Amino acid sequence: MVNYPDGRKKTFHNTAASFGGRGMALEEDINITNTYYLSTDRAVIHKKPTPVTIVKVDYPSRSAAKITEAYFKLPSTTDYNGIYRNRYIDFEAKECASATSFPLKSIHEHQITHLETVLKHGAIAFVLVRFTKFGKTFYIPAETMIPYIRSLTRRSIPYAWFEENGHVIPYNYVKPVDYLKVIDTLYFKENQ
Amino acid sequence: MVNYPDGRKKTFHNTAASFGGRGMALEEDINITNTYYLSTDRAVIHKKPTPVTIVKVDYPSRSAAKITEAYFKLPSTTDYNGIYRNRYIDFEAKECASATSFPLKSIHEHQITHLETVLKHGAIAFVLVRFTKFGKTFYIPAETMIPYIRSLTRRSIPYAWFEENGHVIPYNYVKPVDYLKVIDTLYFKENQ
Repeated sequence: MVNYPDGRKKTFHNTAASFGGRGMALEEDINITNTYYLSTDRAVIHKKPTPVTIVKVDYPSRSAAKITEAYFKLPSTTDYNGIYRNRYIDFEAKECASATSFPLKSIHEHQITHLETVLKHGAIAFVLVRFTKFGKTFYIPAETMIPYIRSLTRRSIPYAWFEENGHVIPYNYVKPVDYLKVIDTLYFKENQ
Repeated sequence: MVNYPDGRKKTFHNTAASFGGRGMALEEDINITNTYYLSTDRAVIHKKPTPVTIVKVDYPSRSAAKITEAYFKLPSTTDYNGIYRNRYIDFEAKECASATSFPLKSIHEHQITHLETVLKHGAIAFVLVRFTKFGKTFYIPAETMIPYIRSLTRRSIPYAWFEENGHVIPYNYVKPVDYLKVIDTLYFKENQ
């Protein structure tokens, strides 16, 4: 349970699967990693805020606006973007509870289209998938993943495909998901 | 008054200056411009969602999560970023009601730091300021604006400074804020 700096508790009336903790461990690890990158001046990569449609706002006091009715919106882009070594970085991150395959419904079609588009404009674009059963996080370049997804007739990607086409990201205490290491290997070979 | 696709009305209990319509015209113009850029495949630039801290979520039905308590958060970055011609783009946009000067409190200190940091990593970074009295929107490169702000002892930037150091963005029906035109002039001179 997390307390906000002002002492409010973060409580949810209901922790249905659609909200609550799902996929939060990977998100938290990426946030720690991004904060480390930022503080060491290696890269500037942030998670975008969760998109919500705000319907009602109350002003109980002059300074504090309280949102009393809002709804989650489908994101139109991926969750993370920023800049590293002059390159635009764009990616999505997903946890997968299954040990055998990654369900395609985890990634929205418009997110795939978004990755495809930024790739065309010169981005380093990718997807991070963590198989929680194995504690393994894969980096999959968008240029590898998208054509494969487009060619699929089934609605999931077998785990073996990740072992074959993904790059395993080693865990590190200060950089739990050190994906820049993979980017260095793939796109900045001269520095290896 | 805007109605959502499902018929809900966007209503606010109170339209204090801190919320409500302030700065919305410029935001709307930029959104139209970005949508045009995206649909013509020129650039992929999006506004980030408004950051909110979600405290309470209700689940009146299985599918619809309703946020019943949330608060606005200070943004830690700028509002817009994306990619254009292989370059990472990052900017903040502000409307200014005064005809004589732009108050520095309009831009948060951490947003200036953010622009400074992405600049160092190779971004095309800038600020768009619209003086609503004149209907004039200026493009100011971050590399011009930041040293100037750092050198200021007063808490506002005189309008004359924008006339001298900014680039006026011409209005166009399909691209109300065609800032890529300025970027082409400043950073891709070979194509002029």
